[in-house]
Amino acid sequence: MSEVIAADQLRLLIERIERLSEERQGIADDIKDVYAEAKSVGFDVKTIRKIVARRKVEAHHAKEADTLFATYAAALGMQLAFDI
Amino acid sequence: MSEVIAADQLRLLIERIERLSEERQGIADDIKDVYAEAKSVGFDVKTIRKIVARRKVEAHHAKEADTLFATYAAALGMQLAFDI
Amino acid sequence: MSEVIAADQLRLLIERIERLSEERQGIADDIKDVYAEAKSVGFDVKTIRKIVARRKVEAHHAKEADTLFATYAAALGMQLAFDI
Amino acid sequence: MSEVIAADQLRLLIERIERLSEERQGIADDIKDVYAEAKSVGFDVKTIRKIVARRKVEAHHAKEADTLFATYAAALGMQLAFDI
Repeated sequence: MSEVIAADQLRLLIERIERLSEERQGIADDIKDVYAEAKSVGFDVKTIRKIVARRKVEAHHAKEADTLFATYAAALGMQLAFDI
Repeated sequence: MSEVIAADQLRLLIERIERLSEERQGIADDIKDVYAEAKSVGFDVKTIRKIVARRKVEAHHAKEADTLFATYAAALGMQLAFDI
Repeated sequence: MSEVIAADQLRLLIERIERLSEERQGIADDIKDVYAEAKSVGFDVKTIRKIVARRKVEAHHAKEADTLFATYAAALGMQLAFDI
Repeated sequence: MSEVIAADQLRLLIERIERLSEERQGIADDIKDVYAEAKSVGFDVKTIRKIVARRKVEAHHAKEADTLFATYAAALGMQLAFDI
């Protein structure tokens, strides 16, 4: 081996990464369960995802983005379900 | 080697994949250039991406999705820049 | 609104998703910190990622995959740093 | 509209993006076909993808990466199908 490495140190780092990755996967599965629960009581998952994404954006930024989107869409003659 | 394989056949397949991948990368770069051009004349790239994505969706499907989104948002008391 | 929805139920579902997503992001940041720590003491992050990925694969499956890879590489005359 | 925009210019840009995106999708489909062809004559698609990825890497870089990987694996007592 051209390179002698601190095997124990490497092992500890990797085991920490693996434990945290497992924890993260567990939470990802929990999130999937909540979406499945939402679907089972009649909600639309795709729309919930859009709402969750939207709630991360500052209200005034979201409003600006909507307005610009509607401006471009109107310039292209696109029919939207809403009016600004 | 436990497995004798048709080396020439494998080479031809891989070279075809590589040629096509190169072609695809070239077009991806062309798309990037168009977005850069749009930005340089003052358009908002993020909004153009939303418009491009929107134009792939059937108008009535898009309208249904907008309506459902607005319904959920209203139920949660979220302020949107538009009214259905 | 064409569709009356259970606003409270929707809110609870979304708030659960948001809490879990925050938790997941916290763990993702912790993982990033461990990789940064590994890098700071001289380990190669890219190689650690390969090792973490490899440790998820059953040893005999990994061995089969390596052998097949080496077989294809040899058929194409590719120089590898290892011999099967 | 708070913002008057060059509708024709926007339309041309978007139509160029759409044409290029369609071309790119066509090539992506062609690549998928080649992989399907490779599979149909008995090759392992996953291994071919690794070979294609490997052939993009400079030989000496690839060798260094393999050596480092084997060094870390040996330090952790992992059984590999190959020896450096």
